[in-house]
Amino acid sequence: MASRLKPEAAPVALTALFHNVRALSVALAAPLSDADATAQSMPDASPAKWHLAHSSWFFETFVLRDHVPGYRLFDARWPFLFNSYYDAEGPRHARPERGLLTRPSLGEVLSYRAHVDAALLRALPDLPPPACALVELGCHHEQQHQELLLTDILHLFSRNPLLPAVWDTARSDPAPEPGPLRWLAGRAGLVEIGDAGVEGFAFDCERPRHPVQLQPHLIADRPISNGEWCTFIDDGGYRRPEMWLADGWAWVEREAIFAPLYWQRDGHDWMQFALDGLHPLRPGAPVSHISYYEADAFARWAGARLPSEAEWEAAAAAQDPLEGNQLDRAEPVRPRAAAASDGLRQMFGDVWEWTGSAYLAHPGFRTAPGAVGEYNGKFMCGQFVLKGGSCATPRGHARASYRNFFYPHQRWQFSGVRLARDI
Amino acid sequence: MASRLKPEAAPVALTALFHNVRALSVALAAPLSDADATAQSMPDASPAKWHLAHSSWFFETFVLRDHVPGYRLFDARWPFLFNSYYDAEGPRHARPERGLLTRPSLGEVLSYRAHVDAALLRALPDLPPPACALVELGCHHEQQHQELLLTDILHLFSRNPLLPAVWDTARSDPAPEPGPLRWLAGRAGLVEIGDAGVEGFAFDCERPRHPVQLQPHLIADRPISNGEWCTFIDDGGYRRPEMWLADGWAWVEREAIFAPLYWQRDGHDWMQFALDGLHPLRPGAPVSHISYYEADAFARWAGARLPSEAEWEAAAAAQDPLEGNQLDRAEPVRPRAAAASDGLRQMFGDVWEWTGSAYLAHPGFRTAPGAVGEYNGKFMCGQFVLKGGSCATPRGHARASYRNFFYPHQRWQFSGVRLARDI
Amino acid sequence: MASRLKPEAAPVALTALFHNVRALSVALAAPLSDADATAQSMPDASPAKWHLAHSSWFFETFVLRDHVPGYRLFDARWPFLFNSYYDAEGPRHARPERGLLTRPSLGEVLSYRAHVDAALLRALPDLPPPACALVELGCHHEQQHQELLLTDILHLFSRNPLLPAVWDTARSDPAPEPGPLRWLAGRAGLVEIGDAGVEGFAFDCERPRHPVQLQPHLIADRPISNGEWCTFIDDGGYRRPEMWLADGWAWVEREAIFAPLYWQRDGHDWMQFALDGLHPLRPGAPVSHISYYEADAFARWAGARLPSEAEWEAAAAAQDPLEGNQLDRAEPVRPRAAAASDGLRQMFGDVWEWTGSAYLAHPGFRTAPGAVGEYNGKFMCGQFVLKGGSCATPRGHARASYRNFFYPHQRWQFSGVRLARDI
Amino acid sequence: MASRLKPEAAPVALTALFHNVRALSVALAAPLSDADATAQSMPDASPAKWHLAHSSWFFETFVLRDHVPGYRLFDARWPFLFNSYYDAEGPRHARPERGLLTRPSLGEVLSYRAHVDAALLRALPDLPPPACALVELGCHHEQQHQELLLTDILHLFSRNPLLPAVWDTARSDPAPEPGPLRWLAGRAGLVEIGDAGVEGFAFDCERPRHPVQLQPHLIADRPISNGEWCTFIDDGGYRRPEMWLADGWAWVEREAIFAPLYWQRDGHDWMQFALDGLHPLRPGAPVSHISYYEADAFARWAGARLPSEAEWEAAAAAQDPLEGNQLDRAEPVRPRAAAASDGLRQMFGDVWEWTGSAYLAHPGFRTAPGAVGEYNGKFMCGQFVLKGGSCATPRGHARASYRNFFYPHQRWQFSGVRLARDI
Repeated sequence: MASRLKPEAAPVALTALFHNVRALSVALAAPLSDADATAQSMPDASPAKWHLAHSSWFFETFVLRDHVPGYRLFDARWPFLFNSYYDAEGPRHARPERGLLTRPSLGEVLSYRAHVDAALLRALPDLPPPACALVELGCHHEQQHQELLLTDILHLFSRNPLLPAVWDTARSDPAPEPGPLRWLAGRAGLVEIGDAGVEGFAFDCERPRHPVQLQPHLIADRPISNGEWCTFIDDGGYRRPEMWLADGWAWVEREAIFAPLYWQRDGHDWMQFALDGLHPLRPGAPVSHISYYEADAFARWAGARLPSEAEWEAAAAAQDPLEGNQLDRAEPVRPRAAAASDGLRQMFGDVWEWTGSAYLAHPGFRTAPGAVGEYNGKFMCGQFVLKGGSCATPRGHARASYRNFFYPHQRWQFSGVRLARDI
Repeated sequence: MASRLKPEAAPVALTALFHNVRALSVALAAPLSDADATAQSMPDASPAKWHLAHSSWFFETFVLRDHVPGYRLFDARWPFLFNSYYDAEGPRHARPERGLLTRPSLGEVLSYRAHVDAALLRALPDLPPPACALVELGCHHEQQHQELLLTDILHLFSRNPLLPAVWDTARSDPAPEPGPLRWLAGRAGLVEIGDAGVEGFAFDCERPRHPVQLQPHLIADRPISNGEWCTFIDDGGYRRPEMWLADGWAWVEREAIFAPLYWQRDGHDWMQFALDGLHPLRPGAPVSHISYYEADAFARWAGARLPSEAEWEAAAAAQDPLEGNQLDRAEPVRPRAAAASDGLRQMFGDVWEWTGSAYLAHPGFRTAPGAVGEYNGKFMCGQFVLKGGSCATPRGHARASYRNFFYPHQRWQFSGVRLARDI
Repeated sequence: MASRLKPEAAPVALTALFHNVRALSVALAAPLSDADATAQSMPDASPAKWHLAHSSWFFETFVLRDHVPGYRLFDARWPFLFNSYYDAEGPRHARPERGLLTRPSLGEVLSYRAHVDAALLRALPDLPPPACALVELGCHHEQQHQELLLTDILHLFSRNPLLPAVWDTARSDPAPEPGPLRWLAGRAGLVEIGDAGVEGFAFDCERPRHPVQLQPHLIADRPISNGEWCTFIDDGGYRRPEMWLADGWAWVEREAIFAPLYWQRDGHDWMQFALDGLHPLRPGAPVSHISYYEADAFARWAGARLPSEAEWEAAAAAQDPLEGNQLDRAEPVRPRAAAASDGLRQMFGDVWEWTGSAYLAHPGFRTAPGAVGEYNGKFMCGQFVLKGGSCATPRGHARASYRNFFYPHQRWQFSGVRLARDI
Repeated sequence: MASRLKPEAAPVALTALFHNVRALSVALAAPLSDADATAQSMPDASPAKWHLAHSSWFFETFVLRDHVPGYRLFDARWPFLFNSYYDAEGPRHARPERGLLTRPSLGEVLSYRAHVDAALLRALPDLPPPACALVELGCHHEQQHQELLLTDILHLFSRNPLLPAVWDTARSDPAPEPGPLRWLAGRAGLVEIGDAGVEGFAFDCERPRHPVQLQPHLIADRPISNGEWCTFIDDGGYRRPEMWLADGWAWVEREAIFAPLYWQRDGHDWMQFALDGLHPLRPGAPVSHISYYEADAFARWAGARLPSEAEWEAAAAAQDPLEGNQLDRAEPVRPRAAAASDGLRQMFGDVWEWTGSAYLAHPGFRTAPGAVGEYNGKFMCGQFVLKGGSCATPRGHARASYRNFFYPHQRWQFSGVRLARDI
């Protein structure tokens, strides 16, 4: 996780990065009331207020407390509240009870942010390189929480029978129809994946870069669309156990799953709840808010399979991770239909794409030293890798080697599916 | 539940009652932020905002909608949110999810209250007697929710590691020590209990008045104090199964119970969390926030038993239910030590007193007709009767025949214990 | 629980009682394989083998170990296995895991029984009165386990998709139709209930005898029949929340309850599973295997209520508890239609009758000293009283003051309902 | 899953295989009573009787019913009971309730086996190749259930406080001490793993053979021993969260894990429960009955990691899978200390070795057609691969490409750990 910004440029570039990241978080929370920012709709999600405070705690703890002499904690009782899962930082508030923290208020948390921002910007020019690396890490950490803030608030609002909109209106789609899905040849033979540690930021779990042998295969030019998903539903997709993994079918039956999250029937039509409220389903947009189980079942139904992480990453190597429908500003983001193109479409942005690869260590993986070593490694069990970023991922955060991971039943992220196929 | 106000006086008296009750609810919520008023700390509790809205829904539904021609609902989607448990009123929002209703906001709910108040005060002079009876019922209903609002917010704040105070400082105690407990002879032979339906309001479950044969017994002159409870703890009260009901002991072990709710150790001393924050335990005050299981175990340990409802009610018949430490205004209420007296002390106010009687129908009980018939009767199973009101009970709400009821494990109310003994 | 057999007659009468009780238990288990006798179908039930061993443990512990010098335990490791719930006897095997005790085998348990029988019969002539009282208590205790053995094995076999019969064929019914239900006047005014402690055995919870004031009421001449229950079902009894207690309705929805336990549809007809296998429902027989919730809902639907324990007991005082359809020998017992009669029918035998009274202490109740004091008192919470015995109750075990008790959702006993009504 | 026995030899070889496999199952169950064979100690385990019946159902259904004209089912009601998880075969008895099937008895199940054996041996000479392939599959299927029968019965007996032994005495160990652990160079570069489908039986999930690129690494010459595990415990292994995966630590805390399954303290010493009862822990034997979480934590504590499946399989390619401590006859098998050797030790037999690889499809994997296609593929989610077989694996069942799989918390198999290390 060492910073790979050039030493002399680091403080200036970091200052800009820090400033932009911190400002976007506050902007994302602007439409929220104190109550909106406090409630927690499920243990997997956190209150918006908590995201705002926890990302500040990260800077306060690992940079200001550890590297800035004389820094005084904003409130000595708050680290207990806003430590997420760092055992090395001691005991902490129980995650499922975050929604009971009506105090401190949203306003007090914003003051906390201002306090941390001022102290950090004051300290930044003189920070040693290891501390600069932690600032950079903290910015990328906060970007992750920006995406979670959006998906958590979407989940919260979806549980309110009034179905309130976070923002009034989304921009309209430039291209309502993605056109037919096409199969492209994937890279085969020995390929390299993972982060080489040479330029730009990457998390420890993306490293080291290493060779992987791939078999010949095809990969779809774009993710599956809502309209294609409707065909799956109409064909009994959620009622036929032969489509499903055993765990997936048990989940379908136990949870009475019948469609992607946030879909609901309106007579014969489907509606989808989004950050701008309830709207008719857009058939051309990529399907989102599906679990691994659903992605896998769809692929089996379609006579295909999910791409492996290495297949996906090898295919994405030639794509620009800064393009695509990603998060630029505070607005009601949503996946949009792919524009026409001959090559791979929507590898970055729109929806995270489930791969068929478990989230495990790359060969030679080493955790970062210290408490931040708990960042990624201890979650390498039971989860699957998603690639590519979504409409809620801050632009600049994702890259080909980026590894997102969730449990196979989780689907409150903007998660979708791109198919692959053996040749 | 028919009003027993004199017909001609009813509107005037009702107007005053309605005005006072509605104003007190708003005053109780004044120290709460939007977030405080939204959170729900357990399924048994409700958000303060919900109490404010539900008590308004009661008037809107059963009085304005049903008895005031031309009344328009404030928002047609809200009855789904704010119906508590009236099956006859149709489906409703799931109780354990009330804390997810960040919208409508506290401000919008206060507007709802103002709308209902204005409509009801406009309509009141012309309401027919059955509607007036429902207004009166609605006022007593709201008083119940005032007490719940206080106990629910106390519970919520207790789950915040910062242990915030709802109000800054409670008034100091007039009498810190209640003096030794004395045993008084209870009434024996044939006594009458229950409400006769002649004067004053009473809930349906208090009726009819009926004779009960009582055996000779003694009743304690006051509830058990915190100091006496400490002796029980020090004698291994929470570690000796022979003191406990089988269900109670299972509860102690499952929940790791070691003291009344809101008690915590500070070295060798006990602290108690209250509406004005964390304070050293006041040994002279009645113990509160104990379950039926605890009350029963203490009684067994003390070689005594709980009074039956009839014993308690017969003893209370000569007491003034308007006296004692009850809720008069928005402040951090708490049980206080009894003042010296030769007779029964603290029968009304301070703490609800668990009786050894199950909450079941009085002989000849009839539920009220219509949806309000669901008010009391359908809960007559598995709960125990508590008598006398507490420091959080609005003055004027309780009376000797009043029947409060909770499950034996519940203890977030101001619940305490008075002993009785066979002769 | 002191014996009230005449001192000089006690050993002889006790010997006969002991011999008969012990023999019947073994006979009841005769159709069972080792596996049948080992399995446990739910935490509420126990394996037949466990009943056989536990009832022997009771004699071994409280009589042989405590009162017979030189007695050696059959196996010193078994008390841990076969103590049910006596905390004073130390830790014990977890109740829900009784079905994992494949060893000792049924044969070994029968050897244990023979060992205890021989030792006890040898010691009986010289036992002091307190020990004789414990032998008598042990016999009545074992009779309770005989009924449980039958109802537990019925439940176990009902969970086997093959629906095996315990015994081949039941005797046919003498009277298939009970005729219309009639209402009889109950006793009103001051009545005495409970056991006076003068003659015959009674459990501690039946004492002391005490006066109760009853209001005028009617009581049905017989329990509700299966045919009448069908009418309730056909009228939407299980689909209309207004019939139900709140806890009851939650139970109906959570457990998807649609009929009494052991009923299943065969096209338009109902079948009932019983100790002799699956048979068409007998409409004239009393409904059995219903919960308190169902009994209460039926009563409300019928415009009636359940009798109180005192009403039932006062009515039963003039009945002979030795009559009726009770357990005499090892056979597939079941409730049978009432024979014609002008007075109360089927007060004893056929089905236990839910009363509307909670199982609580009679005024002046004292638990027996020692470990057997845990027999009844510690269960006085959350349960309701059932009266009168069933077809599975050993004849001679029940009496008017007898108090059976179960939680309101439990229904694997032969539990039915007799209605009452206010005048 | 097509048979790769030479066509002309197939019937003869198959007959011998079938005969031997079927006989061993019955021998393994010989020490069990009807009750022992009926009980189910947890949902993950099945009754011995069920294993005996289910493995017969497999032959009856997929061979006799589908390929032998005129075959009559032994009992048409039994397929519902003994289908495990084949959705294509229709609904089936709930897995967690298998222990309630006291009927059919063990004797009846043995009759079922005899019936199936006779019919199959009669039909075998004339079976077409696809049916022969299913017989072969059925034999390997039954071998899996033999191992489960042993581990399930071990678990059942461990839950009995009497800790009964299944067999009286195990053979003594030839070599009590394995000597120090040594590190050997693993194979690096492009290797091939998986089954090529050329000779011998393999399950569908082992195919196809495919190339994998391996990084340089070391692999331990033998599994970790009980004695080495004691050092981990003594160093606080179960009390230090930094050793554990997040899911693993949550499991340790939730389940109060403090040692491998079947270990218990006797003062300062450890005892281990096994098929021959409770014995002092043998420090030289490989640790067994550990979860993936524990294996992973030990590896982290030791500064090492788990081998990947490909690393393990590449290393095992030169080993003889028929050697080692595997199941040959009905006896109380257990892991034994490794004999001295310069190369890899105990790759086959003794304990299954957790790998760091998720159980997912090999590239190009195709499920078998028909119901047996549910055999392996639908479990490819959330589980980890174990390699090498154990002391309870029938000799001849395992091979280098064999893929066993369990969830990371499961540990009732003979599961152990071999370490690997990056260079």
